[in-house]
Amino acid sequence: MANARPIASSTLVAFLHELANLTDAAVMPHFRKRIAVANKDAGGGFDPVTVADRAAERIARKAIRARFPEHAITGEEYGAEAGSAYRWVIDPIDGTRSFIIGAPLWGSLVGLLRDGAPVVGMMSQPFTRERFWSDGAKSRWAGPAGKAKPIRTRACTSLADAILTTTHPDLFAGAEAKAFAAVSKAARMTRFGGDCYGYCLLAAGHIDLVIEAGLKPYDIVALIPIIEGAGGVVTTWDGRPATEGGRIIAAGDSRLHREAMALLSVHCR
Amino acid sequence: MANARPIASSTLVAFLHELANLTDAAVMPHFRKRIAVANKDAGGGFDPVTVADRAAERIARKAIRARFPEHAITGEEYGAEAGSAYRWVIDPIDGTRSFIIGAPLWGSLVGLLRDGAPVVGMMSQPFTRERFWSDGAKSRWAGPAGKAKPIRTRACTSLADAILTTTHPDLFAGAEAKAFAAVSKAARMTRFGGDCYGYCLLAAGHIDLVIEAGLKPYDIVALIPIIEGAGGVVTTWDGRPATEGGRIIAAGDSRLHREAMALLSVHCR
Repeated sequence: MANARPIASSTLVAFLHELANLTDAAVMPHFRKRIAVANKDAGGGFDPVTVADRAAERIARKAIRARFPEHAITGEEYGAEAGSAYRWVIDPIDGTRSFIIGAPLWGSLVGLLRDGAPVVGMMSQPFTRERFWSDGAKSRWAGPAGKAKPIRTRACTSLADAILTTTHPDLFAGAEAKAFAAVSKAARMTRFGGDCYGYCLLAAGHIDLVIEAGLKPYDIVALIPIIEGAGGVVTTWDGRPATEGGRIIAAGDSRLHREAMALLSVHCR
Repeated sequence: MANARPIASSTLVAFLHELANLTDAAVMPHFRKRIAVANKDAGGGFDPVTVADRAAERIARKAIRARFPEHAITGEEYGAEAGSAYRWVIDPIDGTRSFIIGAPLWGSLVGLLRDGAPVVGMMSQPFTRERFWSDGAKSRWAGPAGKAKPIRTRACTSLADAILTTTHPDLFAGAEAKAFAAVSKAARMTRFGGDCYGYCLLAAGHIDLVIEAGLKPYDIVALIPIIEGAGGVVTTWDGRPATEGGRIIAAGDSRLHREAMALLSVHCR
């Protein structure tokens, strides 16, 4: 991997918004329409891929190649393209189930890695007209009015006080399900159905803990700088970097992160 | 119960929008704020009631008493007031868990019964600036642009093709959980986290089936005309009117309603 010259974070954030404008425009005409749903999981599970997802990824890849031709790209639909130390990681519709039922909890994710480490990230929700993003240092939110506001996670020192979310109970297989159930039982409240929106609400201080499993890198890379820039912690269940996906735990407070990770490890190592 | 003179549905719908304007304004300042969460469930469960919920219900009650002083009112927070054959049923924040975590899937519900039968209903979601309502004959949706559009459920003749949602797995106790699991297993896809938004997305043709249990009348009364006016069916699991709450099944297609109800009855009579 070549050592790439650093790019100013302001340049990168401006480009994230340009990309979000493109993916928003590509995706929104398909939201709440009767859309064609391809089944890419030949094993018979339901893993919907929409026309919108593919179209938006093609548009995002084209824009990245035009602006940063030497950069690498990884996307959900069209795999990995080689390149420099910079790698864009994109998923125009994270939360396809949410998208399909018309719920506004999906998001368009774009993240950037440099030598494998997260640099900046964007989650755009064009129906609610919200964006959550990070320049690598601070995280921000903007709503329909467009004005960016800083976001921060909230303090939560104990699992007994924590609000926990995850996308769906079926994320967890075998021992994972037992581990999740143990944390859920100890938490003050559990809520299903979050998708990427859940991590963003954690960054904004409304949720304390998100625990998931079976994630792909493109499900989480964009969210890492958003969570960390807001003061949160996100790792695998055994404390490694979250960039490769898999079993993920995000907490707004590092003390809660430690407590929940310890409980997960009782059931799942 | 006195036999009340019918009120024109256009008058009632205009008043539903007036009430939604009031509850929207009362609730929104509290959304995504650090809110005081009272625990009204002395048994130790987590049943959050917000300042916003109570304030909005007081405002709605006041407006109803001013406009229709002879009408009865039932609300989540302040119980039932006696009155004529007309009864307003209100829940300014249906989906308090969703509200607390900052997710836009809660709604302000106002329904009207006449001699116990649903007449009109409104679900307002002020963050996404959406409303779903029914005049008792037709159901409509309006988004931020304000233009009302008719909504219709979609055809779905078989559980194998159906998208099923419910708010949370913990809604179901004992045999209910087995019954729900049987339907969920037979369905094409299950999604948690819907609250009242799920029923509205069913009315709009994006979801085929909603199954819940333990509902109160104020959780469902407002939604009945919205579902039925869009071409859907909503009853208890054993086919009785949904107005009293309890175990509720809503389907966009009456054939799917029959199939799912038959499967539920295997486990739960």
